[in-house]
Amino acid sequence: MDGSQLLAVSQERQAQVDAVLERFFSLSKNRAAAFGPQYVQLWEALESNTIGGKRFRPRMVMAAYQALGGTDIEAAAYVGAAFELLHTALIVHDDVIDHDFSRRGVPNISGSYRDAAAASGSSERVAEHSGISAAVIAGDLALFNSYRLIDRTGVADVTRSRLLEVMDDALFASAAGELIDVDFSINFDMPRVDDILHMERLKTAVYSFECPLQAGAILAGASEEVVATLGDFGREIGIAYQIVDDLLGVFGLEAETGKTTVGDLREGKRTVLVSYATSTPEWATIGELIGKADLSDAEADSVRAVLTSCGAKSFAEGLARYYGNRALARLAEPHIPPALRAELHPVADAVLGRVK
Amino acid sequence: MDGSQLLAVSQERQAQVDAVLERFFSLSKNRAAAFGPQYVQLWEALESNTIGGKRFRPRMVMAAYQALGGTDIEAAAYVGAAFELLHTALIVHDDVIDHDFSRRGVPNISGSYRDAAAASGSSERVAEHSGISAAVIAGDLALFNSYRLIDRTGVADVTRSRLLEVMDDALFASAAGELIDVDFSINFDMPRVDDILHMERLKTAVYSFECPLQAGAILAGASEEVVATLGDFGREIGIAYQIVDDLLGVFGLEAETGKTTVGDLREGKRTVLVSYATSTPEWATIGELIGKADLSDAEADSVRAVLTSCGAKSFAEGLARYYGNRALARLAEPHIPPALRAELHPVADAVLGRVK
Repeated sequence: MDGSQLLAVSQERQAQVDAVLERFFSLSKNRAAAFGPQYVQLWEALESNTIGGKRFRPRMVMAAYQALGGTDIEAAAYVGAAFELLHTALIVHDDVIDHDFSRRGVPNISGSYRDAAAASGSSERVAEHSGISAAVIAGDLALFNSYRLIDRTGVADVTRSRLLEVMDDALFASAAGELIDVDFSINFDMPRVDDILHMERLKTAVYSFECPLQAGAILAGASEEVVATLGDFGREIGIAYQIVDDLLGVFGLEAETGKTTVGDLREGKRTVLVSYATSTPEWATIGELIGKADLSDAEADSVRAVLTSCGAKSFAEGLARYYGNRALARLAEPHIPPALRAELHPVADAVLGRVK
Repeated sequence: MDGSQLLAVSQERQAQVDAVLERFFSLSKNRAAAFGPQYVQLWEALESNTIGGKRFRPRMVMAAYQALGGTDIEAAAYVGAAFELLHTALIVHDDVIDHDFSRRGVPNISGSYRDAAAASGSSERVAEHSGISAAVIAGDLALFNSYRLIDRTGVADVTRSRLLEVMDDALFASAAGELIDVDFSINFDMPRVDDILHMERLKTAVYSFECPLQAGAILAGASEEVVATLGDFGREIGIAYQIVDDLLGVFGLEAETGKTTVGDLREGKRTVLVSYATSTPEWATIGELIGKADLSDAEADSVRAVLTSCGAKSFAEGLARYYGNRALARLAEPHIPPALRAELHPVADAVLGRVK
C-alpha cells in the first residue's frame, strides 16, 4: 500500500466513525429537546468537543480490526466511537480537575459556559460555577454513553461482554492515573522517572493505545495470543507517545502541537524531562523557573538550554526510542499476521517521527 | 402482612443489596491494589459514601420485582445495587457542582480528601483541589460501574437491554434536571412552581422512583401496561416526595432529616414554598432574608412564620397530598395486581406521612 492508499483507508475509517457519532448526537439532541432548549445546547457543546478530533483511538480500533480480517466496519466504527466518547469524557473531567477553561487555545465546555454566563451579567464566581457545572454534567453523559455505544454494536453476547471488559479496564486504569497525577501536582517532591511513566501510561496510554487495539482484535475474533501481544505493543508505543508528548510540550513548535510550548514549564508539569533534570547538578540553575507562572520567553529559552545541556532532552529522546523499539519487537513476533504488522508499523514510525 | 413481617422483608432485601455492593467493592479494591495504595483508598472512600444509605432505590426495584412474582432475588439485588451506585455517582458529582464538602454533616469525598491534604500541610486552595479531584474521579467510577452491575445480573439479552435503557433514561433525565437546577441557582428570577416541580422530577424523582420501579417490573417480566403504570405511579409519588422534602428542609426537625433546617433558607434554595411565597404580598417582608448566608435562627423563625401565614406551607402540603393521591389512584387501576398494590401503598403512605 502506498501513502495515498493509506490515507484513503484512514479517511474512510474516520468517516465511518464520524457517521456513528453524528447519529448518536443527533438522536441525543432530539431526545434532549423534550427537556428544554438548554439541554439541547449542552448536547451541542458536548458534540463540538467530540467532533473534529484526530479520531486517534477509533483509528487504533479499526486498524487492528481490519488488519485481522474484520469486515463489519460499522460494528468497528461503533467501538471506535465508544472510545472517542470515553476520551471526550476523560478530557472534559480532566479540565474540571485542572480548573482549565480552554483546551488548545479554544474555550472548552467550562469555558464556553463561563463566558456565556459572564456575558449575561453573572459575576466571575457565578460564571465559573456555571462553566464547571456544565462540564461535570456533560462529562457524565459522555462517560455513560461511551458504554452505551458498545451495546449498540449489535455483536454477539460473548464478544460484547469482552468489549465491555476492555472499556472497563480503560476507565479503571485512567481513573488510577488521574489520581496519581493529582497527587503529583499536590506534592512538593519531584516524582521519579519511572513513577511518571507509570502515571502517564495509566492516565492516557491504556485507554488510547492498549484498549482500543485490543478491542479491535477482540471484535475481529483474534486469538488470545494476538490480543495479548496487541496490549503489549500498545503499552510500549503508548509510553513512547507520552514521552514524545512531554518533549514536544517543551521543545515542540506551537503550530504543530497546538499547545504553547511554555505552558508545561509554567505549570511545572511533572515530566520525564524535568524529573531527569532534578538528578543533575544543573537543576540548581533552573529549579526555581519550573512552575513559575509568569515565566518569560527568555527564561523559557534558558530552561530549554539547560534541559538540553544537562542531558535530559537526549535521555528522554533515547527513552522514547527504547519504548518504540520494544513496541516494534512485539510486532515482529511470529503470530502477528503480516497485514497487522503493516498497519501498525507506520503507527510506531509516526510516534517516533515526532522526535526530531 | 403485618408490620413486623414487612420490616423483615425489607431487611432481607437490604441485606441482599448490601451483599452485592460489598462484593463489588471488595473486587474493585483488590483490583485497585495493583495500581497503588492511594487508589484503594479512593475506592474505600467511594464505598463509605455508598454503604449505610437507606437503600431507597433498591427497595423500589425489589418491591416491584417481588410483588410481580419475581423469584431471582440475586438478579434483583444487582439491579438495585446498580441504582444505588448511580445515586452515589449523582450525589458525589452534585456536591462537586455545589462546591459542598460535606453531606448530612459528615465530610463527603471532597471533604475527606480536602481535610487530609490540609492536615498534611497543603494550602486551602490545594487542599480543595485535591478534594474536588477525588470526587470527580470517584463519581466517574461509580457512574460507569452502575452500568456494569446491570451487565452482571446474568439475565437474558432482551431483558438486560431493556434494563440498560431504563438506566439510560434515569441518567438522561437526571443530567437535564441538574442543568436546570444550575440555571435556577444562577438566574436572579424566581422560577415558577411548575418549573421547580419539573426540575425536581428530572433531577431526582425519575432515577429514584420511576426508573427503579420500572426496572423491577421489567426484570419480573411484567406487561408493558404494568411497567407504564409503575412509571406513572413513580412520577406522581416522586414529585410528592420532593415537595415534602422541600417542606422538611424548612420546617422539618434536624434530627429527623439530618439536615439543618436553616440550610435551605440560607442557600436561597428554589423550592415550591419559596416560589409560591413570591406571588404573595407578604414576600416583601422576607424576600431579602431568603438566601442570606448568615441568616440568624430568629430570622429563620420569622421566615417560617411568614411562609406559614402567606399560605405557602399549606399550599405545598396540599400539593404534596394532591400528587400522593394521584399516585394512589394509579395503584387502584385494575391491571395492578393486589400484591403490588399492597407493596406500594405503604410507600405512598410513608411519603405523605412525612407531612405533619
